Amino acid sequence: MGPAQVDIPSFVRIKPGALGRLGLYAARHERAKPALLASAGLPDPIMTAVRDGFAERGIAFALEREVEDPSFAVAADLLAELPAGCDSVFGVGGGRALDVAKYVASLAGAPYYSVPTSLSNDGFCAPQSSLALQGRRKSLPCRMPFAVVVDTAVCSDAPEVLWWSGVGDLIAKLTAVQDWKLAYHERGEAVDDLAALLSTSTVYQFIARPHRDAESLQVMATALMISGVAMAICGSSRPASGAEHLISHALDRSSKRPRYHGLQVGVAAYLTSRLHGGGHTATIARLFDDTRFWDGIRAEPFSRDEWLEATRAASQSQCDRFTILQHRDCVGDVEAMIDSDPRLAGCFT
Amino acid sequence: MGPAQVDIPSFVRIKPGALGRLGLYAARHERAKPALLASAGLPDPIMTAVRDGFAERGIAFALEREVEDPSFAVAADLLAELPAGCDSVFGVGGGRALDVAKYVASLAGAPYYSVPTSLSNDGFCAPQSSLALQGRRKSLPCRMPFAVVVDTAVCSDAPEVLWWSGVGDLIAKLTAVQDWKLAYHERGEAVDDLAALLSTSTVYQFIARPHRDAESLQVMATALMISGVAMAICGSSRPASGAEHLISHALDRSSKRPRYHGLQVGVAAYLTSRLHGGGHTATIARLFDDTRFWDGIRAEPFSRDEWLEATRAASQSQCDRFTILQHRDCVGDVEAMIDSDPRLAGCFT
Amino acid sequence: MGPAQVDIPSFVRIKPGALGRLGLYAARHERAKPALLASAGLPDPIMTAVRDGFAERGIAFALEREVEDPSFAVAADLLAELPAGCDSVFGVGGGRALDVAKYVASLAGAPYYSVPTSLSNDGFCAPQSSLALQGRRKSLPCRMPFAVVVDTAVCSDAPEVLWWSGVGDLIAKLTAVQDWKLAYHERGEAVDDLAALLSTSTVYQFIARPHRDAESLQVMATALMISGVAMAICGSSRPASGAEHLISHALDRSSKRPRYHGLQVGVAAYLTSRLHGGGHTATIARLFDDTRFWDGIRAEPFSRDEWLEATRAASQSQCDRFTILQHRDCVGDVEAMIDSDPRLAGCFT
Amino acid sequence: MGPAQVDIPSFVRIKPGALGRLGLYAARHERAKPALLASAGLPDPIMTAVRDGFAERGIAFALEREVEDPSFAVAADLLAELPAGCDSVFGVGGGRALDVAKYVASLAGAPYYSVPTSLSNDGFCAPQSSLALQGRRKSLPCRMPFAVVVDTAVCSDAPEVLWWSGVGDLIAKLTAVQDWKLAYHERGEAVDDLAALLSTSTVYQFIARPHRDAESLQVMATALMISGVAMAICGSSRPASGAEHLISHALDRSSKRPRYHGLQVGVAAYLTSRLHGGGHTATIARLFDDTRFWDGIRAEPFSRDEWLEATRAASQSQCDRFTILQHRDCVGDVEAMIDSDPRLAGCFT
Repeated sequence: MGPAQVDIPSFVRIKPGALGRLGLYAARHERAKPALLASAGLPDPIMTAVRDGFAERGIAFALEREVEDPSFAVAADLLAELPAGCDSVFGVGGGRALDVAKYVASLAGAPYYSVPTSLSNDGFCAPQSSLALQGRRKSLPCRMPFAVVVDTAVCSDAPEVLWWSGVGDLIAKLTAVQDWKLAYHERGEAVDDLAALLSTSTVYQFIARPHRDAESLQVMATALMISGVAMAICGSSRPASGAEHLISHALDRSSKRPRYHGLQVGVAAYLTSRLHGGGHTATIARLFDDTRFWDGIRAEPFSRDEWLEATRAASQSQCDRFTILQHRDCVGDVEAMIDSDPRLAGCFT
Repeated sequence: MGPAQVDIPSFVRIKPGALGRLGLYAARHERAKPALLASAGLPDPIMTAVRDGFAERGIAFALEREVEDPSFAVAADLLAELPAGCDSVFGVGGGRALDVAKYVASLAGAPYYSVPTSLSNDGFCAPQSSLALQGRRKSLPCRMPFAVVVDTAVCSDAPEVLWWSGVGDLIAKLTAVQDWKLAYHERGEAVDDLAALLSTSTVYQFIARPHRDAESLQVMATALMISGVAMAICGSSRPASGAEHLISHALDRSSKRPRYHGLQVGVAAYLTSRLHGGGHTATIARLFDDTRFWDGIRAEPFSRDEWLEATRAASQSQCDRFTILQHRDCVGDVEAMIDSDPRLAGCFT
Repeated sequence: MGPAQVDIPSFVRIKPGALGRLGLYAARHERAKPALLASAGLPDPIMTAVRDGFAERGIAFALEREVEDPSFAVAADLLAELPAGCDSVFGVGGGRALDVAKYVASLAGAPYYSVPTSLSNDGFCAPQSSLALQGRRKSLPCRMPFAVVVDTAVCSDAPEVLWWSGVGDLIAKLTAVQDWKLAYHERGEAVDDLAALLSTSTVYQFIARPHRDAESLQVMATALMISGVAMAICGSSRPASGAEHLISHALDRSSKRPRYHGLQVGVAAYLTSRLHGGGHTATIARLFDDTRFWDGIRAEPFSRDEWLEATRAASQSQCDRFTILQHRDCVGDVEAMIDSDPRLAGCFT
Repeated sequence: MGPAQVDIPSFVRIKPGALGRLGLYAARHERAKPALLASAGLPDPIMTAVRDGFAERGIAFALEREVEDPSFAVAADLLAELPAGCDSVFGVGGGRALDVAKYVASLAGAPYYSVPTSLSNDGFCAPQSSLALQGRRKSLPCRMPFAVVVDTAVCSDAPEVLWWSGVGDLIAKLTAVQDWKLAYHERGEAVDDLAALLSTSTVYQFIARPHRDAESLQVMATALMISGVAMAICGSSRPASGAEHLISHALDRSSKRPRYHGLQVGVAAYLTSRLHGGGHTATIARLFDDTRFWDGIRAEPFSRDEWLEATRAASQSQCDRFTILQHRDCVGDVEAMIDSDPRLAGCFT
């Protein structure tokens, strides 16, 4: 019994201009028949930069598809479409398209290049895909990407709301680990200390300089990526997903118009940090002040009723995840916070 | 070609009281014939806590030895002494003893428990041991620990100078990665982005709260451990060792009385950050102010002449590591800094 | 760059009575919520032995399903049905059910127990599943089984035709490797020597004692299992699948009534060994004499026309596999063999 | 908990002329600074073929040494001598030199090319080296070779006695596994079924055609190599080493003039197969007849007294290996066999 082993991306580039170098990377890795799966409706310059890079190296795509619907069925269709000899899959775009592309590559056993054009959540380097399977959203295990390529210039051009979403998903590591420790104390559930420490430790570099420029986006990308590695270490999303994710998942199921994952998760993390007590509340609040995260929420406030309903539903969730919501009845507390916490003023209607 | 794999410790515990639970951990992992290799002269309460923990579980040590001299020959002797059937090696104490214990375990193919009693450097979780082989210090590859157990209460009782040493070794990640990037730009040496990002990103959580209590020691232990994982990812000490380590190694060879590794490395990191230019100098200076690192140096100042000689020697080093010292002649600059940088006042005689 | 790593089953049991001990193995591995996926129509005593073993250990199945149709869609349905917390998948029965069960386990990321009740082909320990995806049979990559459990008493009770099928699939390793070497000489396709040597070397232990008792079935199971490991080593089915498999796949697509995989493959291996020339023809012929394999064919002869058509189709196959059929036009030779090789008398109508 | 992983050589070539292609292989793998460690006194044509191959590719050796003494101390000296940047180690020659070379490469963390010039035992692809450490022979764990290159033409030119030695070490797998199963039945020691099956299954391909030509040497090399992989699977030499090895080790310690490992092991395997009873005795006897192995023994008979003493010593061995010798007092039986088994006539004096 020696050390353990964890899957990590073989190749990582996080820098301005990386998108235009995808073809170069593909050439270096001797990819001859890549498939390109991209979000529908990406800005022209992005797709042009990608295509030109491949063309310059004389590499033609064996398959090229736009992806909208993050479902298992779509992934299965794409798997069937992959031509024989296709030797790599490039996923370019937002979280939904990447979840599909990553899953298709995993099914095909092909090396996967994860190329997010915004940093709205930590899925781009996680060993699982969130896909609808027969009507229900599931977190399905899949292989780690072979490569992660983040063009920080492109990401800084993405709408600010996507960046806020990334901020929310990032800070949720703090409450996720708090819930994990609670599950240990209350239920004896084993905590993987390395995964827990890794998941939260990288958050602080971003907090120390929470800007939206290339430098801070590199830090954010690294932290989100390492969160994915932490999940791979312990074989579950525990280090990155606690009560705040249960609430967000419940909103996805019941809300009339769900918002970006990280917006929901961020506000829910703030709420659950207050339920837990302790110093994280101040840390989160300050980060949300510094990044003007609250403005993003207030621009399009959440529904108070939907959130209370979601909190209730999350508390009764049948999944195996024990959190503060399973520990005690929190709905009344959440209601009081929504109604009276000055920081949340304007965030709910 | 899928994701890469990296060795990580299978078992990590970083918390107060962990030392007294070693026997419990051993019992859980079904170790029946462990060997205990400990630093000579550890305080009685430490060794008593360890021994009692094993005795309570009914586990007797198959071999128990004190280790002083970090040499290959000592490791070979211990390997020969290990009884047949010995199923694990526990290394307890300071960096030198742990380097030997880790190497013995690696040679024997036995799972290794790394139990530092101070956090004076990042060796406790690195895939290499620094040992004297036929008179020369070498970094020899070895297996990752099976387990890392850090008792933060014990570490906070360690002399402050050992903590300062850890601070110095930790902050050196910033300049090490700067040197790596320089080698890329000047020589085309490949940088492993994941290793580089991982190595530096965890430093900031400590910088944000650089105290000497259990909480901050947990953060420091995590950051030093992750630095070891970064080395495992890229298969070299590059992400943790640049010009500042070359200078420290040169001091180890030529100085009349070498100081703790991290004290030398920390001051050298400050100097090389100034040679590089850029924002790290301010970061390092502030950390050294916050932790009173400078006081540790001034209590026993370095020799100005030895440092200039060491800088010269490091610049002419025949090893493959390209740093700012290989890039241009820096001896004059270093001399000027030592003589006139107000922060270094009192640090050299 | 060190040694490579290959996935192998963690747990292997090949012996009489193993089926009744499945529950015991599950208990030892601490499986609390297993799923049971079994071939439709297995003899009662087999299912009873399995169920009793689990019941004795107090383990209830979280899901229990019969599987008939080896398709991706069926696997997706089962994946959706797997209850939360399901911690293992047991596949019991014939090749088709096992291909589905193995794939479901792989999609779910759950440890998979492969429990063949006959040895009709080498799929039970191969890192791929043969499934229909949108109407076309595909070899889809999947994870190696966690466990392989072969009850040789049960397998020796399976119909003789299934054993003959195993004999045919086993001997096809010889011609598959011959085709691989041909592809190297004609096309420069890299041969993985270890995979090639491993695949064929274990065949000879069976040839030396080709009986249908527990001892020989253990040898056959081992050889088929190691063929799966050889595929894992080189990441393709090359060491186990050449022209003889192309012909069999073509028959599966066009024949009115396809026969067992190994029956088709065995006869095709005999034919392609003659196309290649060399000593394998005599080896195969003797094995088929010793095992009365020919009788199995003659009991229900193949269609001469279908085979010629399949040979033609296999020769024009668009897949990347270069074999003797791609090397030269073999249809005339095959026709002559079918018509005049005395060993094939009665095998075709 | 998924499949396990086992180390295997990344690169395998077993064919006539492979020695002259070493330089070509090195060039393909981009080795720029290899070390060459070769047996002392290899025939000139062998060393010339090796050197010419590297010279043709413009690759100079960073270090070149002859190795005679298989000791840990010699390996340590060579480790110290390895120049910085040495990127690979090539071991060429007999078992002793290869054990040293493999160990040096493992200590250095450098990829190792194992190039045996005879097949006298299975050490060339085993994850351990047999070295003298402070006066005692030990089996020390080390890394699997990166590459195994066997020139079957060179091996067929090696003295016949070395081939006989390989025959003896190969057939010992049968008795080693018998002893393992005995330890299971008598002591409950876990048997790794995959390792056990793998170790013995490949022996039969050689038995089926036990010649000394290139084809049979390829088969023998494969079987010996797979025996090494079997050891890697279970993490011990159990699948390849039982009572017959205990006797041989005892002879190595006490005999006036120890013979080749495989000669001792082969005769001891014959004896222990008789102690066990069962069909292996006939198999071994026939193989030894077919290969004229007995002639090799009779040319230089063993000492009856030394063997009885060795059997006694092996029976009292303090190591953890339980075999037929630990099971019951066998010395009388062995004495009777030596004195009266007609096959052993002339093998002892």
